[in-house]
This record gives sequence, structure tokens and C-alpha cells, in this order.
Amino acid sequence: MAEKRVYFFGGGQAEGSAKMKDLLGGKGANLAEMTSLGIPVPPGFTITAKMCEQYYKNGRKNSDDLVEEVEEHLHRLESTVGKKLGDKDSPLLVSVRSGAAVSMPGMMDTILNLGLNDEAVIGLQKSTNNERLAWDSYRRFINMFGNVVMGIPHEEFEKEMDKVKYKKNVEEDVDLDANDLKELVKLYKALYKKQTHEDFPQDPLDQLWKAINAVFGSWNNPKAIKYRKINDIKDLLGTAVSVVAMVFGNFGDDSGTGVCFSRDPSTGEKMFYGEYLMNAQGEDVVAGIRTPKRITTLQDQDPKLFQTLVDVKDRLEKHYRDMQDMEFTIQEGKLYLLQTRNAKRTGAAAIKVAVDMVSEGVISKEEALTRVTPLQLEQVFHPAIHPATKKKVKAIAKGLNASPGAATGQIVFSADEAEEWHAEGKKVLLVRPETSPEDIGGMDVAEGILTSTGGMTSHAAVVARGMGKPCIAGCKEAQIVNKKMVIKGQEFKEGDWITLDGASGEVFEGKLELKEPEIKGELTTFLSWADEVRIHSYRASKGLKGFGVRTNADTSTDAQRARDFGAEGIGLCRTEHMFFEEEKIKIFREMIVAADDEARKKALDKLLPLQQKDFVGIFEVMNGFPVTIRLLDPPLHEFVPKDDDQIKELAKIAGISAQALKNKIRSLHEENPMLGHRGVRLGITFPEIYRMQAEAIMRAACEAALKGVQVYPEIMIPLVGHIRELEIMRGHVEEVAKKVLQETKAKIDYKIGTMIEVPRATLVADELAHHADFFSFGTNDLTQMTYGFSRDDVGSFVPQYIQEGILEDDPFAKLDQEGIGQLIELGIGKGRDTNKYLKIGICGEHGGEPSSVDFCYRAGMNYVSCSPFRVPVARLSAAQSVLSNQK
Amino acid sequence: MAEKRVYFFGGGQAEGSAKMKDLLGGKGANLAEMTSLGIPVPPGFTITAKMCEQYYKNGRKNSDDLVEEVEEHLHRLESTVGKKLGDKDSPLLVSVRSGAAVSMPGMMDTILNLGLNDEAVIGLQKSTNNERLAWDSYRRFINMFGNVVMGIPHEEFEKEMDKVKYKKNVEEDVDLDANDLKELVKLYKALYKKQTHEDFPQDPLDQLWKAINAVFGSWNNPKAIKYRKINDIKDLLGTAVSVVAMVFGNFGDDSGTGVCFSRDPSTGEKMFYGEYLMNAQGEDVVAGIRTPKRITTLQDQDPKLFQTLVDVKDRLEKHYRDMQDMEFTIQEGKLYLLQTRNAKRTGAAAIKVAVDMVSEGVISKEEALTRVTPLQLEQVFHPAIHPATKKKVKAIAKGLNASPGAATGQIVFSADEAEEWHAEGKKVLLVRPETSPEDIGGMDVAEGILTSTGGMTSHAAVVARGMGKPCIAGCKEAQIVNKKMVIKGQEFKEGDWITLDGASGEVFEGKLELKEPEIKGELTTFLSWADEVRIHSYRASKGLKGFGVRTNADTSTDAQRARDFGAEGIGLCRTEHMFFEEEKIKIFREMIVAADDEARKKALDKLLPLQQKDFVGIFEVMNGFPVTIRLLDPPLHEFVPKDDDQIKELAKIAGISAQALKNKIRSLHEENPMLGHRGVRLGITFPEIYRMQAEAIMRAACEAALKGVQVYPEIMIPLVGHIRELEIMRGHVEEVAKKVLQETKAKIDYKIGTMIEVPRATLVADELAHHADFFSFGTNDLTQMTYGFSRDDVGSFVPQYIQEGILEDDPFAKLDQEGIGQLIELGIGKGRDTNKYLKIGICGEHGGEPSSVDFCYRAGMNYVSCSPFRVPVARLSAAQSVLSNQK
Repeated sequence: MAEKRVYFFGGGQAEGSAKMKDLLGGKGANLAEMTSLGIPVPPGFTITAKMCEQYYKNGRKNSDDLVEEVEEHLHRLESTVGKKLGDKDSPLLVSVRSGAAVSMPGMMDTILNLGLNDEAVIGLQKSTNNERLAWDSYRRFINMFGNVVMGIPHEEFEKEMDKVKYKKNVEEDVDLDANDLKELVKLYKALYKKQTHEDFPQDPLDQLWKAINAVFGSWNNPKAIKYRKINDIKDLLGTAVSVVAMVFGNFGDDSGTGVCFSRDPSTGEKMFYGEYLMNAQGEDVVAGIRTPKRITTLQDQDPKLFQTLVDVKDRLEKHYRDMQDMEFTIQEGKLYLLQTRNAKRTGAAAIKVAVDMVSEGVISKEEALTRVTPLQLEQVFHPAIHPATKKKVKAIAKGLNASPGAATGQIVFSADEAEEWHAEGKKVLLVRPETSPEDIGGMDVAEGILTSTGGMTSHAAVVARGMGKPCIAGCKEAQIVNKKMVIKGQEFKEGDWITLDGASGEVFEGKLELKEPEIKGELTTFLSWADEVRIHSYRASKGLKGFGVRTNADTSTDAQRARDFGAEGIGLCRTEHMFFEEEKIKIFREMIVAADDEARKKALDKLLPLQQKDFVGIFEVMNGFPVTIRLLDPPLHEFVPKDDDQIKELAKIAGISAQALKNKIRSLHEENPMLGHRGVRLGITFPEIYRMQAEAIMRAACEAALKGVQVYPEIMIPLVGHIRELEIMRGHVEEVAKKVLQETKAKIDYKIGTMIEVPRATLVADELAHHADFFSFGTNDLTQMTYGFSRDDVGSFVPQYIQEGILEDDPFAKLDQEGIGQLIELGIGKGRDTNKYLKIGICGEHGGEPSSVDFCYRAGMNYVSCSPFRVPVARLSAAQSVLSNQK
Repeated sequence: MAEKRVYFFGGGQAEGSAKMKDLLGGKGANLAEMTSLGIPVPPGFTITAKMCEQYYKNGRKNSDDLVEEVEEHLHRLESTVGKKLGDKDSPLLVSVRSGAAVSMPGMMDTILNLGLNDEAVIGLQKSTNNERLAWDSYRRFINMFGNVVMGIPHEEFEKEMDKVKYKKNVEEDVDLDANDLKELVKLYKALYKKQTHEDFPQDPLDQLWKAINAVFGSWNNPKAIKYRKINDIKDLLGTAVSVVAMVFGNFGDDSGTGVCFSRDPSTGEKMFYGEYLMNAQGEDVVAGIRTPKRITTLQDQDPKLFQTLVDVKDRLEKHYRDMQDMEFTIQEGKLYLLQTRNAKRTGAAAIKVAVDMVSEGVISKEEALTRVTPLQLEQVFHPAIHPATKKKVKAIAKGLNASPGAATGQIVFSADEAEEWHAEGKKVLLVRPETSPEDIGGMDVAEGILTSTGGMTSHAAVVARGMGKPCIAGCKEAQIVNKKMVIKGQEFKEGDWITLDGASGEVFEGKLELKEPEIKGELTTFLSWADEVRIHSYRASKGLKGFGVRTNADTSTDAQRARDFGAEGIGLCRTEHMFFEEEKIKIFREMIVAADDEARKKALDKLLPLQQKDFVGIFEVMNGFPVTIRLLDPPLHEFVPKDDDQIKELAKIAGISAQALKNKIRSLHEENPMLGHRGVRLGITFPEIYRMQAEAIMRAACEAALKGVQVYPEIMIPLVGHIRELEIMRGHVEEVAKKVLQETKAKIDYKIGTMIEVPRATLVADELAHHADFFSFGTNDLTQMTYGFSRDDVGSFVPQYIQEGILEDDPFAKLDQEGIGQLIELGIGKGRDTNKYLKIGICGEHGGEPSSVDFCYRAGMNYVSCSPFRVPVARLSAAQSVLSNQK
């Protein structure tokens, strides 16, 4: 069969259908579908998106075959309508509209009233008996064509319009009469000639092809490219072009145009929502010169028409089984639908619509789960800049959207100040080049965090996400020095107000109004459906039942929050964060600089009860759920003091000179700490540290168990790359555990396992599995080492990599399935070859990212683990993975 | 068949043979073999090494079965000799000797004269009619038994001996008569009792089992464990124990004992070599109290006996087809062989013997190639501390044996001073905490390098190996501060003489005498045989012909040296080293701190002709061979100046303030430079740098080609982890290459390929192979990232890992075949799936390490590449791989 390049619709029949979105674009497919449904739609035809692809392949030219086929369909349209393009008595006018398979609102171009020229305008006047309509349409066409096809700035046309208004002394364009508009057409044509050095084209076919090519061209305009990138839209052919017979909302006072939704797109409530303008064409509604009316007022104005519109809306929603966003035009009291599509909506609306539609019996629970994106779900948990405010303001800088949510506050430049100001009841934003573990206190009281360096997994980013606090990281435009932040020459001092949008990475000047999240009952219902799907899933080929969601939490507060968000245990509890509290850091430092084993032992003995207490709290919160606790991971130099006073104090405690301590601290320095003396390597060289931690965990477990708490401790050895490391450490932990269990007489079902984060660990996973009850993939470090990317340093090139499309995504945000994924699959396969029942999860930052969650499901993991605030997203993503992999 | 635990030999027949070394140890197997050959050997039996293994498995106990079997064999020995153990008239005495499958000279224990007690000594006196012999043997036995079995220090016995000598006023023990020795026996027995609180055991069977167990126990004494570790001896069962009837070299003046070699073990010359002592037992020769005589003097003393010995030597060498090391005893003019084994020999001797034996028609060329270890070959290329000197001195410190060879010189603490002192004609050793690329000049003029930090692949180690210069790295005992080096409290100043042994890692005080290597014609012959095997090898399963050896060389000098050593091209030419020369570093820095593209371009334009000149030199030396040139790899911050003067100078050139330059330099700082902005990442962000380098390479190639040189440039992109990186860079290089070729009209067959060093590259090697003509495995970085080990930082734990056997070897010295090897095999497999003819090599430090070379051969690489001085070793290792994989 020869290729069909153009699809006709009109007269109650259409060659296309709603299923042909890839080819006809959303708009073209739905125009065809509505036509077939008998809904009033002006006739027309759609050029396929494939022709757009070919247009680019041919060096921005159309094939002769296409030209022929379009002209055939144009003739068919002319005979359907009974008018001819450019006819001097009763001309056919058309609109030329873009439309891709995925909706990209406002990104591409549309041209109305095409076909008008100096003769046809007279014909239109005659046939409509409406002189003003004719000249109004002509001036609109010249303006749009000049702007869209020839690139003449719209403002230039506005200036001409202003001249005429000024001369006539009127405010609004509806107050211009036919003569004024005639004059305007003259001025517009002169402007066109001046700007393009060509006369305004009089041949309607010439107009048509120029317009079609302009729409094809708009596919690759910078804003469209950027939109596709931001929204992760890939693998589209291009845009389709629909050529539709014009209907005129500007025919007179019984004509008009509007946009409406079958439900409220910001709340999801089931109410008819929208607005319209009489005697206007589409762009007038958008331009905001006249204020549109609420759709419900149409009922008073024309009850019959309103009822028709309500009927159409109901029919379309029912037909498409989803909330619709519709464009319509009324010409001389008759309704025409120009577009319908599934409506874009806020997160809250998405959830409410999905839940309501299940109650209404329209969709199934499973379908409902696919109707809310993880991003939409995330929205509902965070405050946002008030939409009305956001429209009015412009960001002063943009960084990485490291942790979502909006925050407004006064700038402070140190963690200590953050705490002081907070104590005085002030709202602060912590602004720093970067944060370090010592800043935790300040981060905790700040409304949000802004750093000028670091990436998506920098300390600031990771901690902020853990706290569910907005964070913008790596905002390179902000230069932070000497208690000042300079952005593009503008200086911000301590105490100045700024506002952060962590979801977009935008920084705003001043104190903007925020909108708090409203969490409704629908959310609970919705997530319970996600859990049903997730918990009852069965991966037959792997014999795996269920797919768990745990959390990464280091404190009982975080653990409680995660429980509230539905976490089924802890996948990663980092013990080192516990050491940064004032009391503990001093003892810990004493331990690090201990001159001999005895001194070290003394310090560890002091730490033991403190760690134990922390663990008891966590076990209590996680009653009945597993808690994976990772033994000390970071290199010791992260804990040593940096300023002189602290060094002096520590030297005194350690009983050595400050100089000797400085030498000791210097000796801990590493060239590449990421690949240095950390993780299990510390366990091997200082087994007493790991033994103390294991003892604290087991004592805490026994203490909690004896109180009646169900405890399932899982002790995790980090950074293992060699079987002997794990074997030796398992020996130590088992020895300690047995001793504690004998002493306390408690019965505890404990497990010992390892992080899989060093690439070599995946290669020898079969060996490691002999000594591990579980594996937890530490995909942050695994990504760092497999890609050779230091998270702290990639800021100098990874943004450019993403910009230039070398990398599609930041591999620290989205798991690199192609590369690192191979190692994960290898590790899982080898691990399970040794131990079929090996429990496997992920505890890297990827555990809350939807595409990564899907990978983990397919790869055969038992659970994912993520920061508390991402737990709901993970629950939904997990359910969506289950559903999409059932297909 | 029941397990045979004990093997008898004697009376011209033996149950064992030379083939049973694993079970009987070298000594036992050869005693059996010699017995069967009819060579005079005292009868005896050997307990298998398996019994040693069982001894440990049973918690240091022997099984009843073994006890029974030994006693049976003892009775058989008694009847063969016609004497009984402990007999009061004519007692049997035995020696109890250790002997593992691999010779470990002096590491384990031997006990002579066993069976003597207060009665048997009288029996011995009677039966031999030699009172002195009897008491001399008894005192020797108490001494040896006390020392070996009971751990009484030998010095304690010496003290008693000294008392007796003092009393008698004699110097030597031969001057003691029977009565003196009787008294000595009393004193020894008293000493024994005092030290052990037990009487000296009188039951010969009790003596025997204690002695056997002591030999078993000596298998795991610290020095034996260390010896096995140093010599990489693994997978042995334990030591066998040979119980042999005593013959007495101390019978009188017609008795004696000696050691001899069938050729000279230090030169390999075919001459009878050895020494002996009359009226002595074995330990006297070793103890050095009396000076032994040269073996040839035996001819004058007893021509018949000498001829017998010569005949035995010739027979044994012919039988074993290798140079023999023999122990013999003469009792009353009759010769007994107590041991023969393949002789240990120096590198020079190994080569000469191997080559000579081929000429003599004893062994084939292939067999000759297996007779020289790579370590022996390496020896002959480096000076060494004179053996006579080395015997007398003790090392003051020990570091890593980073680059072999010995050097003596005066200490200097900076590279600049090294150059100044060298200019004054002084020999210097550069002593530094660590070296950096700026020290190259000083390293070049120094005799050797000593650093207190860093590992086997630290800058100092890598560069020194490249220069073929001795280097001891990571010598932690040496504290280097303020122009002083302190070792165990002893201070060394600038100008003090020390001597380094890079092969052992030992540091000596003072100026020791060195022995220069003597390279003989045999070496050339030997290596040509290695090349024959290597070049004509064929790996049928992979369809690979030959196995190449290239070199890593950055200058034409290095390249020339490597050619002289037989390198067949360059596998890695690091362009960055070229930038460290005075002239270039300034321009390069100018480029780095350039404010804009134009300034950068200007600096690059200046660098182009300089780089081009370097490359021309290299191409000329490598006429007819491929030259792989790696584009810029290290992060830019490695090149920026550190001291204030240089910063000021650079700021002036760059036209910015010193403070601005400091800020710029600070902004280049990275947390983990190993995983930072380097390699192809620089190529992506600054394509102009890579384009300049590609242009310099291509212009140089054309220039050389037009002079008639055959050039085969291979341009290598480092650190690639993603297909797009390679695709983009290949585009740049091809564009530049085409331009240059068009301009110069030269015809050059150039290749573009990539380093495989980021783990991810191995995982996507199938993709990379679409854009690569060759792969070169950079196993240094691949090891760093796959293990998560920073070479610069592992000093804090890897030594302990090796010490405790967590790691068998330093993975930077010996390729980790189990882990990293998997990635290499994966990368090769995937690469060749895409391109069957993909050329693959290795250019990491492992390319010259024998076990790694073998892995590369088996994995299907086309060649290995290593530093010039390791090229001969690689040639031999490669040939040995070919041979061992043919089996």
C-alpha cells in the first residue's frame, strides 16, 4: 500500500482516529475522532508527523508526493465546505495548526485566517455580509503570518494598532470599525514589506505552504527543544499539521471562543471549568487584553448553547475516560469543537480525578495508578510558590533542583548563624558554597538550602532530601564570599529575603507567597491501591513475591516520618551521622586520635551506650520491620576538627600537643578520599570500631526486644570488594552478637550482609554471597566508581555533558541502566546462584527515582529504599512497575 | 589401596622417585632417585608432606597409623644398616631432615646424630673405635636437639663450649679432645635441664618423634612463612621428613663434608664449583668458624675420591638435565651423597646455563626459555650491591621495592638541588616525601629515588621504572622534614651518603660498593629464542597470530632505549609529560588560565610546533613500528604553579591579578581528582586542546613520512566511559587529520582508538568498538576504580591487607585476574563481537609483570606494553605464556 501522507476529516466521517496520535498528533487524531463521533468540528485534513521528519531529512523541503496529496485534500475540503481558497466571492479560509503525539502547549505555532488576500477579503465581506469580520480577519492574518512565518516581532504590529487606536481615541480593538481595520491592513502590509522586503503574499497556496513549513520549522525552535528536554519527551517523529476550515469567533456578538475543562484542573473537583470571550478569536483569550468570562455565565447568556457544550463535554470525557481540555468556537450561535485532549492537571487534581473516576466506575484501580505520575505525587507533599505569584516574578538564578518544595526566608551564611537566627524566631535560608556534616544543625533549622557548588548527590542535596527540605545545589551563578552572595552583579547580604523553588531550581528575590500542600483522603486511598498491587505482585520467572519499599533514615525522627509515609523498614541507617552530634563528635574524635589501642578502647567504651540509645529509638519506631544498619563508612578525616580552637581542645583531651595533633590530622589527608581508607577498610584496620558498633546494635536490639518490640536488625558491612573482608568482618560481628545474646538471653533474628558498591563486589558476588544474608546495592558509589565520576567534582563537566546530549540524564539522579545496570544484574545473578534466597535491595539515591525503581523491579530486587519524603513516590513507582511489567 | 605414608630407600632400591616431589619433598624424592640410580646414598625413609598437613589438621598430632608405619620403616632401616637405634654396642644414628616440594634453603630444621644417649654414645665409641667422634656427635646432637626441638638459643650452648675452650686454652673446637667433649656433654645436659626443666631424653624413639614433630612445626615458623610469601610459594601440603642413617664427616681426617655445584651458580660457567671441610659435620661448613676449601683441592688430596665425585656430579646433571647443587659426606674415605637438587643461580648464570645446555644438546630452546625466571632476567639489567659487601651490612630501613637496581649517592631533598649537585659532578639520591611531575628534572639526574610515602604505582615509582632507575617508595620509617631524614632516631643530612637496593627495598647507610650488570652474548641469543616463540605463536581458538611487546615511552630517548631492548612499537606515549619541560609548562599554564577562547587558542598555537617536534623524534626512532599516543589525560590542576613567584609570573603573562589567578587555581581544585575533570572529559570541554594535539601528531607523522620514515600513528582517547565521548572526539580527530593530510599530501595509515580504563567502558565495549580501531586497557585506573582503591592512598591499609593475607598481592603490581580480569575479558569479548579485527593491548603497569602478561595472552590481547626496562622481561614472559598455554 502506498504511504498515506494526509488524512481527511469532515462531513461526519474521518480517515484517522484517536488511536493514531503518533502519526496525526494529538490534535489531528482527536479532530478525526470527534468528527467520527458526530461532534461538530469544522472539516479539514492532517498532514502526518512523518512528513515533518521527512521535511528535515530532505533539508527542509517537502516531497512532490506530499505537495500533490495536500492539494488533492485541499480540493476535497473546498468541495466539502463549498468554498474555494482565495475565492473573490466566497473564499475558504483555513487555520494551520501544529500538533505532536505528546501535547506541548504553546510551544509550536498556529496560523488562523489563512487564504485571505486583497481579493478574498472582499469575497469574505460579501459572503458573510460582515465587513468588519472580513477586515478584522485579514489584519489578524497578516499579523500572525508576519510573525510566525516571517519572524516579524508581534510588538511591531501592536505599534501600528496603537497608532490607529490613538488616532481614533479608543482603548480596545473591538472599538475599531471596519474602516479603521482597513487602514490597519494597509499599515500592516507596509510594515510587512519594510521588514521582509517582499510584498505580503497574495497567492493562497503560497501562503499555505509557507505556513505548513513554518509549523514544521517550529518543531525545532529552541523553546520546543527545551520543553521536550525538560519533560523528557523522546522518540517523536515531529509535529503533524492540521489544516482546518475556519470558523469565526469574531463574527459578531453571537460569536465567540473559549477553553474549558471537564473538571477543575487544579483541584480535580468535578465541576465544569473554563472561560470564553465573545466576538473574539483564540489568541484574544490568551493575550489577556479583555477579561474572559467564566464558562458558567454562558448558561445565562445562551442556555441552549451552554447545554450543548455540557453535553459535548460529558460525551468527550466519557469517550476518552479521562478529564478533557477542550477548545471551542461559536459562530453565529453555533458551537464548533476545535480541539480536545486529556487535560494537564496539578498533582492534587491528578490524584482526585483518578480516585473519583474509580468511584464513578469509569476506570479500574490499576488504571487509576497509571494516571498519576510520580512527579505529580511528589508535588502534593511540598509547598510551592503560589501560582499567581509565580506568574509575576522572574528567577534571578537557576541551580540544580536538588530537593523539591519552595521556601522563603532570610539569608544566613553559616550553620551557626542559622541556629542563632532560628532561635530568635526568624525564618532562614542557609546559603553556602557547600555544606558539610558539621552544618547539620543549621540545615535542620533552615527553611531551605542554597549551595553554589556540588551536584544532585552533594552533601547538601542528600541531606536536604532526607529532611524533605527544599534545596538548590550547584547554583554556579551565585558567588558566595565574605558573607555576601553576588548574582549577576547584584549583592545579597545576610538578612536579605529570597525564595527558593527546589522543584525547578529557581532562585527568586524577596519574600514570595507560598502555597502549603493540602493532603486529602484521596491520597491515602490512592496509595493503598498502589500498595495492594506492589505487595501482591509476583515475579514468576524469579519466584519473587512482593516488592518492598523501605527508607534511608538515621534517626528515630526520620524513621517515624518514613513510617508515616508508608515505609516498610529501614534499608539504610548510616551510623556515622549519629557521631556528628555535639556530645558524640568529641568522643569520636578522641577515638580517632587515640595514641594507642587502650586509649581508643576507652573512647569506644564511652560511645557504645550512646550509639545503643540511638538504635533503641529506631528499633522502637520500626517495630515489626527490618532495620539495616551500616557500620562506619566515611574516612576518619571527615570527623576531625578544622579550626584551631577545636584542635586545641581535642589535643588537651588526647593529652598531646596541638602541633602533634595537627600532624596526625595531616597524616589522615587523602588524595582521593572516595577511593581511600573508608568502609570495611576501617573495619579491617580498626576492628574495635566495628565491634563496638555491632555490640551497640545487638544490645539495643535485645533491650528493645525485652520491652516487647519486634526487632529485625540487619548489620551491613560497607565497601566490600573482596571475600576475605566480608568473611573477617562477619566473624567479628557474629562473635560480638553471640556474646551479647548469651548475656542478655534475648532471642533475636539478626542478619549480616554487605553493601554492593565497589564494582569488584558485583564481579565476585557469588563468593560474597557465601558470607552475606543480604546485599544492598549502594548505587551512589557504584555509579561513581563505574563511571569514574566523583560526585563532588562532576560539576565542571557533567552539566555540559547533559546540555550536549552526551549523557541523557545525570547518572546520580537516574540509574545508568545500560552500564551500571549490567553490573547490578551480574551481581544479583551471581549472588542468587550461590544463595537462591539472598535478600537484595538498593539503598542509593536512585531508590526513589521512578525509572530506577522500575529497573530494580525488573532486575529482581526484593525492595527499594529511599529518603522518607520519597517513600510515597517509591510506593507509586513500584506499583507502576508491577503493572507495566505485567503487560 | 591404603594410603602409603612412608617411603623407603636403601640398598640400591627406593619406593619413591624424583617425580614424587609433591609428596616426598625435593630432598626425599631425590634421595630415592639417587638410590635407584646406584649413587651412594645412606639408607633411610621419607614421611610424606601429606602427613605434615594432617599433623596440623589433627591439632599438631600424628595419627596412630603413621606412628605404626614409621616404626615399621625404622625397623627396616635398622636391618638394612645392621644396627639398632639406641643400641649400646653399635647404635644406629639418624638425621631427621625437612624437605618441601619447593626448595626453601635454610628455612626449616634438620637434626643430626639422633639416637645418641648416655648408653649409645658408648656403643658408638665401641663400634667406631673413635671416642672423640662419639662424644663430638653426642654434644652436637644435644645442641641441635636442644635448639631445634626445645628452642634453647644456640648461643647458650656456645657459652658452655667457650668455657671449655677457655679452660683448655684453645681456639677451635677441633682442638678439643674426647675428654673435653665428655665434659661439654655434661655441661650441655645441665644447660638443657636448666632451660627445659626436663632431663635430656634418653629414649631414642622419644627423640625421633620429637624431632619429626619439630620439623613439621618448622613448616609454619615465621621465617618459613615469610620465605614462602616473598617467593610466592603456594599450594604446598607441608614439608616431608626424611630419616636417614648417619654417615660421619667428623669421623677423622679421612672424613669430611661439603657442598658442590655442577656449574658456577653465579656466572653459569661450566666448571666444578664448591667447598668442603675435613673432619666436620654439615653445620660447620655453614658456621664459618673454619674456612672451607675449594672443591678442586680435593683432587690433590684424594684424586680417586675426587674423580668419584666428578663422575657423580656429571651423572646427576645429565640425569636431571639441569645444574645440580649437591651435599656430600666422606666417611673414612668413602663418598655419600646426602642431597641433590637443581641449583639456585643468579640471573646471569641462569641465562648462560640455559643457553649452554641448548648448545650441549641437553635441552631444547623451548625448555631453555622455561629455565630463566623473569625475575632472574630482570637482575641482569641492573647494578646490584656487591654480594660480598651485602653480606656484611644491615639495612637501616625498608620500603617498597618500587624499581629494581642499586644506587649509591649523596642525599638531596629537592629536585632543584639534585640538578645543581649533579651539575657539580656529584652523585645524588633524591629523597622526598613524594615526587610530583615538577621533580622530573631532579629525578632524571639522580642515581635513585627514595620516598617516604606512595605505593608501587606512585609518581616516583612509575617514573623511576620508566627511567630504569632504582626507587624505594613508601619507606614509612624515614621521616623527611626540614631537609633532614630521620630513621629510627638517626639523622641524615643533605650530602650524607646512603645506598638503595631497589630490588629488595632496603636502605643502607654509607657508600656501598656496587656491581655493574654484565650483559653477555648469551642474553641476546636467549631473548631471540623468546621472540621466535612469541612471534610465531598462534592462538587457534581466537585466530590470533603472534603476541607483541611494545613500550610505554614519552620521549625519543626512552623510545630509543626501548627499541634497544626489543620493543616493537609504543603502546603508550603520554603527551602530558612533554608539557612539564620548562619551556612548555609556561605556555601550557597560560593556556589553562586563559580568560577566553581566543587567549587559549593563542597559547595552543604556540604549543603546536613544540609538540610536533617531540612527536617527529619519536616517530623517527620507531620507524616501521606503531606509536600509540594518548591525548591529554591529567586534570588541569596538576599543571598549575604552587609557589607565589610562579603565580605572580603567570598572572603577569595572563594579564590578570595574582589574586584572580589564585582564585582560578582554587576553582580547579577537586575532591577526588582521580574521578574528576580529566581525560576525554577535558577533550569534551576544551576540544581545542585535543584538536591541537591531534594536529601536532598528524603534522609530525607527515613530516616524518615525507623524510622516508614509516609511521603508524595511533591516536588514543583516554578515560572514555560513554560512546558519545568517543564518537565526538573521533569526529574532531578525523576532521583535523583530513585537513593535515590534504595540506601536506602525505599518505599516512593512522588509527583512532581508546583507553579502556573506566569500568563502564568494559560494559559498553561493544558500542565503543564501533568508533575505535583499537582498545588499550589502562589497568592502573581500571584497578583503581574497580577495586575502589586510590593508588595514592592505599598505603594506609593495603600493606596490612597483604600482611594478613586478605589480598595475596598488591593489585597494582599484579593484575587481579579474578575481579578486574572479568571486566577485561568482558571488554575484549564485547569489543571483538562488534569488530573481529579490533587490535587490543594493555598499557598499564601490569604489562611487564609475568603473571599479568600471561593473563593478557590468554585473554586474547594482541600485545602488551611496558616501561623500556621491563621490555626484555615482557618478551620472556610472553614466550613463557605461549609455551605454558600450548600444554
